[in-house]
Parts: sequence; structure tokens; C-alpha cells
Amino acid sequence: MAKLAVLGHGVVGSGTVELFLKNKDKINKRAGIDLELGYVLDIRDFPGLPYSDKFTKDINDILNDDEVTVVAEVMGGVHPAFEFVLSCLNKGKSVCTSNKELVAKKGAELLKAAKEHNCNFMFEASTGGAIPIIRPIHRCLAANDITAYAGILNGTTNFILTKMITEKMSFEDALKMAQELGYAERNPAADVEGADACRKICILSSLIFGKHVYPDWVHCEGITKLTLEDVAYAKSWGGAVKLIGSVKRTEDGKILPMVAPRFVCGGCQLSNIDDVFNGIMVFGDGFDQVMFYGRGAGKLPTASAVLGDVIECAKHNITILSQMWEDSEDNSFISDYKEDVVSMYVRVNGVSKSEIAKLFGDCEYITREEQPESELAFITPALPEKDIDEKLSSFGDMVLGRIRLLEL
Amino acid sequence: MAKLAVLGHGVVGSGTVELFLKNKDKINKRAGIDLELGYVLDIRDFPGLPYSDKFTKDINDILNDDEVTVVAEVMGGVHPAFEFVLSCLNKGKSVCTSNKELVAKKGAELLKAAKEHNCNFMFEASTGGAIPIIRPIHRCLAANDITAYAGILNGTTNFILTKMITEKMSFEDALKMAQELGYAERNPAADVEGADACRKICILSSLIFGKHVYPDWVHCEGITKLTLEDVAYAKSWGGAVKLIGSVKRTEDGKILPMVAPRFVCGGCQLSNIDDVFNGIMVFGDGFDQVMFYGRGAGKLPTASAVLGDVIECAKHNITILSQMWEDSEDNSFISDYKEDVVSMYVRVNGVSKSEIAKLFGDCEYITREEQPESELAFITPALPEKDIDEKLSSFGDMVLGRIRLLEL
Repeated sequence: MAKLAVLGHGVVGSGTVELFLKNKDKINKRAGIDLELGYVLDIRDFPGLPYSDKFTKDINDILNDDEVTVVAEVMGGVHPAFEFVLSCLNKGKSVCTSNKELVAKKGAELLKAAKEHNCNFMFEASTGGAIPIIRPIHRCLAANDITAYAGILNGTTNFILTKMITEKMSFEDALKMAQELGYAERNPAADVEGADACRKICILSSLIFGKHVYPDWVHCEGITKLTLEDVAYAKSWGGAVKLIGSVKRTEDGKILPMVAPRFVCGGCQLSNIDDVFNGIMVFGDGFDQVMFYGRGAGKLPTASAVLGDVIECAKHNITILSQMWEDSEDNSFISDYKEDVVSMYVRVNGVSKSEIAKLFGDCEYITREEQPESELAFITPALPEKDIDEKLSSFGDMVLGRIRLLEL
Repeated sequence: MAKLAVLGHGVVGSGTVELFLKNKDKINKRAGIDLELGYVLDIRDFPGLPYSDKFTKDINDILNDDEVTVVAEVMGGVHPAFEFVLSCLNKGKSVCTSNKELVAKKGAELLKAAKEHNCNFMFEASTGGAIPIIRPIHRCLAANDITAYAGILNGTTNFILTKMITEKMSFEDALKMAQELGYAERNPAADVEGADACRKICILSSLIFGKHVYPDWVHCEGITKLTLEDVAYAKSWGGAVKLIGSVKRTEDGKILPMVAPRFVCGGCQLSNIDDVFNGIMVFGDGFDQVMFYGRGAGKLPTASAVLGDVIECAKHNITILSQMWEDSEDNSFISDYKEDVVSMYVRVNGVSKSEIAKLFGDCEYITREEQPESELAFITPALPEKDIDEKLSSFGDMVLGRIRLLEL
């Protein structure tokens, strides 16, 4: 018999306990394991639950119980989650987490501790919520050279964009609705400014390259500056504006991670992913492309992913080396996004087509309803971004908006 | 050092060898294994290849080499694949296959042999080609009670339907194009009559229920009777006609597997899957819904899935019990689809709205371009299918078409 300890009894923590207890017999039978709920760590009291006797406020109860072989860390935040997780790993207890901030900021260190103590640090739930993504890449697609990821990694911003697109709601109104529905925090910065998606792209980038990619090294733009005009032009162009986290290998042997709004064409599966759903496309040499779609957040969906890892750890208490990366000394392997060749949607006011043609040659123009006579929107040819910057700088304040196209 | 043997050097077989040799160093490093290509079995000669020295025409060379621990069966067909695979498993060699016919017809027997000899029979490539589906369900989603699958499981028919929908091409012309492009066989029956999708839904059904579901037990309709009129009505209704393989748990503790064309609403991810791509939705209690999308066939995509299994087997040469099912004595656990409650699109000629209302009450009517005056198309309320049959029988030959809605 082995014991599971759950650190934190918030939304995801209580969901993890609930789903585990509901399906415990099936899980144990199916996976050929014998796992019991041992402890739930929380500073609060939760009387009246069927498992109230499992609560503790002292991490040492868990650390000192040798029967605890697997720990689910679902507290969120870096401290004290980091200290708790490190202590567990140092005791040889595997840890499964949904905490993307912890993985993005401390992943290399925790993976190293797991390896040293012959246990696992797993984090399927940290990226894409319920969607299986980490393990499929490292198991099912293990025979491939992965070349790129691109995904909708944040449900809150996708909900806001969906409202802007389908109901012409302003960013501010859509954000307010997301807050009322509980999708967005009262302080929505981590979502709408892209930090949450950035943490997830750091995790995927670290996996693809084998070296830790820290959030500070990733160019990150949110959706706060998006206007209904941009959204309308994207629709008329035949696609949609989506907040895309992406990483690709570049020709110089580096990688280019980025989080930014993108014009996504209608033929791309990502353009059809609406509301709070997430979707992640993966590209590789053998399988070409696959996409994983589902709920990227929420109580039971996230619990489902945490428990998938818990079962794996309970079954195989040896370090899974394929899901490892090392710490990195510097960011010299991160490519400069200004050198990347992109096409851009550009919206200008008071500029003529002949002036645009002088800079960019023949361009595709897009129109929208109620388009002012002085306004033009066009798609630039594919150029290094710094060249587009330079050309557009001559238009100064007449540039009202610009969004990169997603080209896969 | 362990050796891999590949049975069959056709499209998938040569792709499997190609992808393995291309990424061998990465695979071995990433997975912490030391695997070499040992043999390729084929009755034909392949001189001039870098690995021509690996070919054999005699399965005994493979059976008698104790260094061969993993075998990729990529021959297709039931015989002699079945005999070869069984011999390998009886020798304790794990087998990974892309052969859906073999799994659908002989899965229980081969899984039993694998268990008895402490090795694995794996078949990720048999369903959804490159798309990770079998393993994610049994690993990442292992904490959940899976309640249903619904998917586009055959790329050839999806290509034909896409041509009918987007280019108003007739079924016959679209089939001819699929044959010219190499997507459809000269004898396209297995694809267009649904047998291929049926084998895949048998595999998923067997996994969900833990008992072997044989193809003969599954109600299966192909796309040969679909007309451009049906396709046009589906579009005007706001969705698309897709060939859907599905299985769900029913209230009486049974399961209902089925392959049939369906009206899929525009909000469902499956309606956006075009051309030769496949997509599989999975429903469960914790994660709610996920979808997996990618190439369901092809040389390297299928090879990618076979090799994912090969790596797993090379790493863990113990039986993975979670991907098992037992043989079944009879089909008493298969629910009668005529009892299932469905809504249907119905196209009639020479029937009035009042006659329809007498049978079905108020119905939603759909229109199409160039609709003859005597023609009506409507959506029935949700009723047991046998009741819809009975009601429609009174219209006799005036019923021109009927397609079930996909309701998830």
C-alpha cells in the first residue's frame, strides 16, 4: 500500500481529492496499484468532509511518513510550494504538480533533485490543463524530431477574444464578463498580459530544447491593446485573432519562443478553438502535425491531469529521463525575434496605397464594415521583423495597429 | 543492446525503418535505450538499400534470435500476420502493430498471449495513425471514467466528404480523385462502406469496456448513399456531414458502438476536420472532453506511432495491464442501436408540413439552394430510433434521405 499526499485544498486540490476518491477502485484496478489518500496539507480547517481526518497543517507529517510515495502539489505560487516540493523530492517522494509558475521558474532545479533521489517530478497539469500534452510528446511521439509548438494556452484570454469576435464586445466588457463568470481573477494581469501563456511556453520550450527557458527570456505580448477593428479585419481576412504561445527551432540551431496575438488563418485548427478551450499544435518530422484540444483549466479537468501523473508515479517509482531538462547558464540559445521572418497585418490612418507600395511593394488589402475613408489595412510580405519595424517607423503615429500572422 | 525486427517492408514498413534509422541516436538517447535494427522480414528482395543486409524471408531468423526483444508488425491483413505475431509473443518478444484488422479480429487472443509471456502487444498506430490516442487515454486520462468516444477515423472518406462539401463534387467524382491521389484503394469498399472505421471503433470499444468487441457486432453504415442534397442541407443547418465512429456507455450498463454518417453541428470540433485528417473526441467524468487531431494514415505518420510503441516496449519489457481486454463470449453487452434516442435529419418528397407535424409535432425545417417545391427537409425531435423508423415508414418511398444527428 502506498499513500498519496495532496498539498493544498483549493479549487484544484479539492478536485484532485474528489476525483481520486470517486474513481479510486477503478484507478487502482486499472493501473495495478494500491494507492490510498494519506494526507491533505492546508493551513485552513475543513471539518465535515468524508476525509477531514486526513488534513494536516504540518508538511513534516508527510515528509516523515515513508508510506507516502507520491505527492500532488496543487497550491500554486512559487513559495512555499518550491520548498515543500524540494523537500519531498529530497526524501525520494515523487511530486506531480499543476503549478506552471513553479515549473517555469524552478523546473530544472526540481528535475535535478528528482533525478538525484530516483523519483519523479511531473507536470502534465501545468500545461493545457486536462489536455494530455507533455506525456504524449515524450512517449507517443518519441521517435520524432519535434520542430515546433503553437497553441492557445490560456482559456481566459481565449474567452475574451471569442466574445470580441462573435459578439463585438469590447476588450474591457469581455474581461468584465470573464471576471463575473469566474474565468478571470480580479487582478487579470497574468492572463491578459500573457504571463500565464508565457510560463507554459517556457515549459514546452525547455522540453523541446533540453535546457531551462526562463520566462524573462521570452518575448511576451498580451491582448490588452487589441481593438475591435483588429478583430474585424482578421475576420474579413478569413481568420481570427488568437493569443498564441509558440516555439520553433530556428536554422541557426537556436529556438524562438514567443507569446503574442496572431492573425490565424481559417484553415488552421487553432482558429476554431473558442471560449475557454485550449488547443496545442505540435509539429515534427515523422507525424507532420497533431493537435490536442480540451479544457485548459478548471477543478476536475486539472485534477484529471494531476492524477494521470500520480498513477504513473505510483506505478513506476524510477526517474523518467525523457521528461528532463538541464539548467541553462544564459539565454544564448534563444533566437532574436526581431530577426525572424514574418508577415504582418498593419492598420494605418492617413497613408496612401502608393506610399505603402513604395515600402512593401504589392500588398494584400483587407476591408471592414464602417471602415473610415482614411484607414487602410494590409498584409506585409514576409520580411525580418526588424525590417518591417524600420519601414513602418516612417509612418510614425499613422500606424494604428500591427499583428503578426501565424505561419506554420 | 536489443534488436528491433520489422515485419513487412511496404509503405508503413519502409517508413518505420526510415524514421527509426533517421532518429536512432536521438531515440536511444532520449529514451535511455540501446536499440538496433536487427531484421526486416519481406518475401521480396530490396537490394541497394543501406540496410539491405538486414532482410530475411524467414520468420524463424527473428524468432530464434534472443536479442530481438521488440517486433514491429506492419504487414497488414490477418494472415500470416496473426501467426507471426502470436509466435513472437509466445517467445516473449513484444509486438507493436499498425494493423487494425488484426487487432479488431484477434486482439483479445494476442493480448492474452502477451500477458502469459510477460511481454506487450501494442497498437497505438492501429487507430488514428500518428495521433496519440490509445496511450493518452490509458495514461494521462487514467483517473477518469471514460464515457464516450466519437471521431473521424478514416481519412479517405473524410477527403471525399470534404470535396463534396467544399466543391460540390459528387461522391463518385470525389472517390475517383481520392484514388488518383493514392488516398483510396482501387477497391475502396473497406473505406467507403465503413469497415475501416468500424475496426478502429472496435478497438476503442474493447478498451472502454474491457471485453473484445468484434466488427460483426457493430452497426456500420458507409457514405456511398450520401447525396449532394444531404451535404447541402447539412451546410444550411450550420454543420457538416461526417462519417463518425462512436461508442458510448448506455444507462443499462452496456455500450453502443456505431459507424455512420452524421450531421455534426458547426460548434463541434469534428465539423472542422477536413481532408485526410482524423480527429477523435473523448469524453470522461473529470476532464469533460478532449480532442486529438492529426494525420490518420500515411507512411511516416503511421511509422511515428509504431515507433512510439517500440520505444515503450524497449524500455519496459513487462506487460502493461492497463491496455488489456478479455475475450467476450457473446455480444449481450452491446446495446441495440434501434433503442437509442436520436434526432434525425429527414428529406422527403411530396409530403406536407401538416403530415410531418402529425407524426413529429413542430420540427425545425432546413432549406437549400435549388430546392424543388415538393421537397422538404426537417430535423425530428429526439426519439428512440425504432419509433422514428415506424413513423417514417408511413411515408414509404417519399423518404429520400435520413441521417442521424451527432449529439454529444
